[in-house]
Amino acid sequence: MSPTINKTGLPPGTVVYSGYDQNEDVMITLIEFNEKEFIEKEFTNFDECMLHVKPDMVKWINVDGIHNSELIQHIGEKFNIHTLTLEDISHTDQRPKFEEYDNYLVSIMKMLSHDSKTKSEQLSVLLMDKNTVLSFQEVHGGDAFDLIRTRLRSGKGRVRKMGADYLTYCLLDAVVDFYFVILEKVGDRIEDLEEDLVGEPSKQTMKQLHSMKREMIFLRKAVWPLREMINNFERSESKLITKPTRLFLRDVYDHTIRVIDTVESFRDLLSGMMDLYLSSVSNRMNEIMKVLTIITTIFIPLSFIAGVYGMNFKYMPELNGPNSYFYLLGIMLVIAISMIFYFKKKKWL
Amino acid sequence: MSPTINKTGLPPGTVVYSGYDQNEDVMITLIEFNEKEFIEKEFTNFDECMLHVKPDMVKWINVDGIHNSELIQHIGEKFNIHTLTLEDISHTDQRPKFEEYDNYLVSIMKMLSHDSKTKSEQLSVLLMDKNTVLSFQEVHGGDAFDLIRTRLRSGKGRVRKMGADYLTYCLLDAVVDFYFVILEKVGDRIEDLEEDLVGEPSKQTMKQLHSMKREMIFLRKAVWPLREMINNFERSESKLITKPTRLFLRDVYDHTIRVIDTVESFRDLLSGMMDLYLSSVSNRMNEIMKVLTIITTIFIPLSFIAGVYGMNFKYMPELNGPNSYFYLLGIMLVIAISMIFYFKKKKWL
Amino acid sequence: MSPTINKTGLPPGTVVYSGYDQNEDVMITLIEFNEKEFIEKEFTNFDECMLHVKPDMVKWINVDGIHNSELIQHIGEKFNIHTLTLEDISHTDQRPKFEEYDNYLVSIMKMLSHDSKTKSEQLSVLLMDKNTVLSFQEVHGGDAFDLIRTRLRSGKGRVRKMGADYLTYCLLDAVVDFYFVILEKVGDRIEDLEEDLVGEPSKQTMKQLHSMKREMIFLRKAVWPLREMINNFERSESKLITKPTRLFLRDVYDHTIRVIDTVESFRDLLSGMMDLYLSSVSNRMNEIMKVLTIITTIFIPLSFIAGVYGMNFKYMPELNGPNSYFYLLGIMLVIAISMIFYFKKKKWL
Amino acid sequence: MSPTINKTGLPPGTVVYSGYDQNEDVMITLIEFNEKEFIEKEFTNFDECMLHVKPDMVKWINVDGIHNSELIQHIGEKFNIHTLTLEDISHTDQRPKFEEYDNYLVSIMKMLSHDSKTKSEQLSVLLMDKNTVLSFQEVHGGDAFDLIRTRLRSGKGRVRKMGADYLTYCLLDAVVDFYFVILEKVGDRIEDLEEDLVGEPSKQTMKQLHSMKREMIFLRKAVWPLREMINNFERSESKLITKPTRLFLRDVYDHTIRVIDTVESFRDLLSGMMDLYLSSVSNRMNEIMKVLTIITTIFIPLSFIAGVYGMNFKYMPELNGPNSYFYLLGIMLVIAISMIFYFKKKKWL
Amino acid sequence: MSPTINKTGLPPGTVVYSGYDQNEDVMITLIEFNEKEFIEKEFTNFDECMLHVKPDMVKWINVDGIHNSELIQHIGEKFNIHTLTLEDISHTDQRPKFEEYDNYLVSIMKMLSHDSKTKSEQLSVLLMDKNTVLSFQEVHGGDAFDLIRTRLRSGKGRVRKMGADYLTYCLLDAVVDFYFVILEKVGDRIEDLEEDLVGEPSKQTMKQLHSMKREMIFLRKAVWPLREMINNFERSESKLITKPTRLFLRDVYDHTIRVIDTVESFRDLLSGMMDLYLSSVSNRMNEIMKVLTIITTIFIPLSFIAGVYGMNFKYMPELNGPNSYFYLLGIMLVIAISMIFYFKKKKWL
Repeated sequence: MSPTINKTGLPPGTVVYSGYDQNEDVMITLIEFNEKEFIEKEFTNFDECMLHVKPDMVKWINVDGIHNSELIQHIGEKFNIHTLTLEDISHTDQRPKFEEYDNYLVSIMKMLSHDSKTKSEQLSVLLMDKNTVLSFQEVHGGDAFDLIRTRLRSGKGRVRKMGADYLTYCLLDAVVDFYFVILEKVGDRIEDLEEDLVGEPSKQTMKQLHSMKREMIFLRKAVWPLREMINNFERSESKLITKPTRLFLRDVYDHTIRVIDTVESFRDLLSGMMDLYLSSVSNRMNEIMKVLTIITTIFIPLSFIAGVYGMNFKYMPELNGPNSYFYLLGIMLVIAISMIFYFKKKKWL
Repeated sequence: MSPTINKTGLPPGTVVYSGYDQNEDVMITLIEFNEKEFIEKEFTNFDECMLHVKPDMVKWINVDGIHNSELIQHIGEKFNIHTLTLEDISHTDQRPKFEEYDNYLVSIMKMLSHDSKTKSEQLSVLLMDKNTVLSFQEVHGGDAFDLIRTRLRSGKGRVRKMGADYLTYCLLDAVVDFYFVILEKVGDRIEDLEEDLVGEPSKQTMKQLHSMKREMIFLRKAVWPLREMINNFERSESKLITKPTRLFLRDVYDHTIRVIDTVESFRDLLSGMMDLYLSSVSNRMNEIMKVLTIITTIFIPLSFIAGVYGMNFKYMPELNGPNSYFYLLGIMLVIAISMIFYFKKKKWL
Repeated sequence: MSPTINKTGLPPGTVVYSGYDQNEDVMITLIEFNEKEFIEKEFTNFDECMLHVKPDMVKWINVDGIHNSELIQHIGEKFNIHTLTLEDISHTDQRPKFEEYDNYLVSIMKMLSHDSKTKSEQLSVLLMDKNTVLSFQEVHGGDAFDLIRTRLRSGKGRVRKMGADYLTYCLLDAVVDFYFVILEKVGDRIEDLEEDLVGEPSKQTMKQLHSMKREMIFLRKAVWPLREMINNFERSESKLITKPTRLFLRDVYDHTIRVIDTVESFRDLLSGMMDLYLSSVSNRMNEIMKVLTIITTIFIPLSFIAGVYGMNFKYMPELNGPNSYFYLLGIMLVIAISMIFYFKKKKWL
Repeated sequence: MSPTINKTGLPPGTVVYSGYDQNEDVMITLIEFNEKEFIEKEFTNFDECMLHVKPDMVKWINVDGIHNSELIQHIGEKFNIHTLTLEDISHTDQRPKFEEYDNYLVSIMKMLSHDSKTKSEQLSVLLMDKNTVLSFQEVHGGDAFDLIRTRLRSGKGRVRKMGADYLTYCLLDAVVDFYFVILEKVGDRIEDLEEDLVGEPSKQTMKQLHSMKREMIFLRKAVWPLREMINNFERSESKLITKPTRLFLRDVYDHTIRVIDTVESFRDLLSGMMDLYLSSVSNRMNEIMKVLTIITTIFIPLSFIAGVYGMNFKYMPELNGPNSYFYLLGIMLVIAISMIFYFKKKKWL
Repeated sequence: MSPTINKTGLPPGTVVYSGYDQNEDVMITLIEFNEKEFIEKEFTNFDECMLHVKPDMVKWINVDGIHNSELIQHIGEKFNIHTLTLEDISHTDQRPKFEEYDNYLVSIMKMLSHDSKTKSEQLSVLLMDKNTVLSFQEVHGGDAFDLIRTRLRSGKGRVRKMGADYLTYCLLDAVVDFYFVILEKVGDRIEDLEEDLVGEPSKQTMKQLHSMKREMIFLRKAVWPLREMINNFERSESKLITKPTRLFLRDVYDHTIRVIDTVESFRDLLSGMMDLYLSSVSNRMNEIMKVLTIITTIFIPLSFIAGVYGMNFKYMPELNGPNSYFYLLGIMLVIAISMIFYFKKKKWL
């Protein structure tokens, strides 16, 4: 499914990137703001980035690309991050989870995107202190976060007035909101598929149904632990989370439940559609069999009669009457018509 | 499924209507009552409405139409409502939920109605203080509430003697009671479908079955969170809920459980009916195959015999006997009859 | 399913009968007893009944028929019963439940009976104080209770020595014991059906299977909440329940679990039988197809050969040999026999 | 299923035997032991048995046969056993359970045995005090317990050094260990069945599959409550259970969980085999249909051609060529061969 | 399934090996280390091994082979291990579990390996005190542990700096990490199977599907209790586990959950593939039936016509026209073409 370097046997806490091999540079974005000021800078070197940090502003350091293990390790040392956390950040096959360490809170989750197929990318958000948020993404995606940046730049909304915990909430919220976009697209495809099913299902329909089911299994695996994660976040007694932010976290939690509800409904829908498909295949078979049976049942007895009068017996009295041929054609007609009536009565025609 | 404006990327707490685009005016209904008096007025302007409010009476302000975001925001400011609540009121794809804020309690749920298909509309009820209830509906529906209004006008029942918490209960109760009406109609349709199935199921039956299943998935999604919502309401330790009202809330809770029980039973029934349908399709196929097989099995050997005596060999002694034709017809009859006996024994006839 | 007067819109706590319309009189039975005395009287008027009540005896007032709403209301006033309880007593579509009020305990459940089909009737038992039990039934059923009456009359068992709480237990126990009778009958029918299935399943078998499944859904709906009800009863901290009675309640609870276990086993059995049925239909189809295929495969090539020698070509050398007809018959025999061997090898014969 | 005398209507706590009618005598076995001595005696009279009881030894009184209700009642009086317990001992359709009374602990469970079919027999074990264990079995089975007796006689193991609670544990452990024997046999039969399925499944296979499924339902019903029972035993705070014995009870609990795991795995296996069977039936059908279709499709067009040249038209030019017959045979061969190629391409051959 | 010596009837706590009969010698490996030193020795005699033990180093005594019951018993006496633990170590059909005794902690689990099929071997790890770990394996497998040994030898990672609890964690972690390797292989096989299904499923595919399902049942049985085991380990309040190690145990717990998630996803995938297979078989049947029906429906009426003109009636006027043969061929062509059009319209061609 997803690429996993065989980490087995490495000492626990080893920071090894396990995602797709990427040669691109790592991009570090530093955003600093308070109610009045807003600064945004991009770096490729972390130490340089740290030089620009101002103590009295809220800082969001976003690392795009986690394949540079040395960099991750270096950041970890600077911020005193536990090696297990660093390992989790680098290992892209992580289960969404929230963990509380003495000096920081870490949330790991899947960020979905949708081209022709649903893709997932790992996002780790670390709330370091009242003023600092660290985030790690697999690639330069950012769709979900561009809108937060715009909001920060413009100073709209309450985000500029609040601390790092609220910013963390905003990042989670953006990720969860994006799930709805994905689900809407999936919903549309389900509706299309349903129309196909009610109309003229083909072998292709079945394969699409199956691939939708696969996608649901994939989504479920990403979404269910998310619920627990956000619940743990909300209930965490860490002092890093202020009371107003908790209300907002409760709201993201509700959104997550809604995402789960929708995924489960889709699963139910899809398995209902499976039944519909199978019954439609059976119905089709019945249709085919009916045609075969009607044709066979009408013509086989008639052919038999024709066969009888094609026999070469010396003495077959019927053969000699002047109209017996026409009488026979008449009898055949009667047989055919009564067969048709029989099928009409059985509702096959 | 339902229309959702792409809210992704807007700051959290943004009040944006996400239902069907409606150009109709918003209608605000103010109902004020105590044990002796009853006043009912309609407004299109909220500030005008507030001028008529009397402090010593129980007030129910009902807003029909939630597509005017400015109005919602305006009401929110007047009553000091949290922006997250305002967002939930406007966003019609909400999951039923109960939330407790410092100064009010909010219940959001789905109000069902049934024309030819089950429709759902979002209702938000806010218990502001001992005397004030705010309610927000998507459209001028009101079927469920007309009866409460009638009761208020006539002064029957205990509602005029009690406070805003009891009125809130009445609204919830009316919504849940309406679920039973919907379920009864669904139950009737299921019974009709079942008769069809036992009688002469058609391809149409399957499609109806499928659409009933869809409806159950839809109902489930609305009903299950309702249970949790009412449970949370009942168990809330808010001082806004008086002890006598709690008993009544326990009663609505029981009703909700009954609704859920019924929905689950319907689901079980429907999946049983699916089995019945599939087995009936299979049985039908068997019937068709039997007819085909009987006809084929009787006439094919006979046709073969006729074919043999239709061959043009120079020397075929049987052909020359004067009665051999009639002997052969006799043999054919014997073969046909013994075939029929064979099928009788196999219980195919 | 069951008849429900459209109660929607009536004020909560309205006492309206929602069962089948009954014109029969309501019968009130008063049974009073202590260790030494036993009095049993029937009334049609409640006030008259109350005149006969003696303060120092255990009283069981049983009301047969709950369609007289005024009477229910009247009794409610006499005994100070909450209107919600009165509503629950009258509304026959109630979910089994136990509720604790300040001055009494109420248990509502389904009493099953079995003629040709399982029927259910609502029973409400109110434990009013140490000496008084009120019970309300839909009709003059009483099968389940006749035996308790006999025991009371004869003075056998411990019931005459104990209070109203033990009598309440006896009523519950009688109801649950009757479930076993029903389940035994259902079990017998399942066994009959299973024999049919293993023998010669018909279309009828499937319909019976389906109707058994329906009945299980119905039973489940009655039985699961019963468990919770009796559990709540047993765990209630009300002073009306004495310690020795609690042990007996634990016993009824065990019985209820056994009922549930049996219902669930029956469900599993029935769904296994469904599979058996479907596989038997498929097997049947295979049988039919085999016969068709064998006959067709043997005779169609032979018919073709006969057809070839029935052609009217001028020059067909085979036709002129004196024994070629017999040679051909021989060849046909060889073909037929080798076909049969082929089918034997394929295990079709 | 199992025979149940209609106990409905008897006063609760009535000791009536509900198992198979048995005329055999009841056998009472008294085993007394301490670290040094071991005494084993058989009686048919309980009072006589009680005369042999020595106060300072551990006593195990085993009653084989519970159909003598008077005896049970008599024992109950001697040992001060609650009538509900006596009822449970006599009523053989009991659900496995553990109950704690003031003066004793009672464990009721199913003891399985396996001849050609799995049978079950009820066992009740009462831990009366530090020195006394009472056990009641339906019949003289004892397979499971013979080994405990041997161990007691020989003085091996720790059982002779410990009290009645450890003996109770030994009895439970012996019963649970026997479940594994049963499960192993079931496992073997499942493997046999699986080989049949992969090889040549017959209608008989399906019936065996179904009867295995039934057996699993039966086993489940016996095993799941056992888990709860032993858990309750282990967690009981009764002083009758010493600390070292608790460790052993935890071990039986683990065994029970393993039994449940195995039963559940078997259920999963069996439902997988059901699918395998159904798909194999479908595949078979496909095979049959292919043969039919190939034969029909090759010979029907050829027969038609032969039919054409069997027509008696006056003027049919093809008939007169000297080699036209052979040309036609050639054409037929080409048609047949190209048909076969077509089927090869479609992978039907 | 797995070999189990019939232990029934042996006294509890009897140490009897229940795995495959093995005649190989038992190999005891002693590894001792601290931050500076590392000693590794192999023995076949336990007492000799004990002579080399140094009190101030962390010791890992690994016993390869558990079929020598006397040795196990001997080790048990040396280390004061409860007989139930010794029994669990020897009995290879153990359910994964964690147990806390007064003087040690024991974790029993399944170690998986994968040749052509998934195999499992029992591993018991006992954390005896701050410095001692005992481990028992069925055979000289060690793949999973070789890497830990390498790490110990090289002094990389933190393992040399920490105590026996961390070493225990490392062993658990190695086992769980190996599950991922197995799952990856299974995932690959599922993908292969899926491609087969979408392409050209054969009877073989179904059997592979079934055997994969079996493997999942087997994996589930090993993995689910593992979760509980590690959870119990992590939550144990034993002083043997230091705080830093707890963080690492939480990490293994997360890995276990991921393993479970993956197993469950695979199960879902496999049951979806089952549906895909069945629908593909049905589709195939439809294809076959279509071919049969088309051929039959075209040629049977034509053959009938040919049959009619093959009859030997004296007076059949059509036979005498000079072009009637060609007219008839024309009519036949028209019939055939219109049939083909009919099938085109029905989308069968």
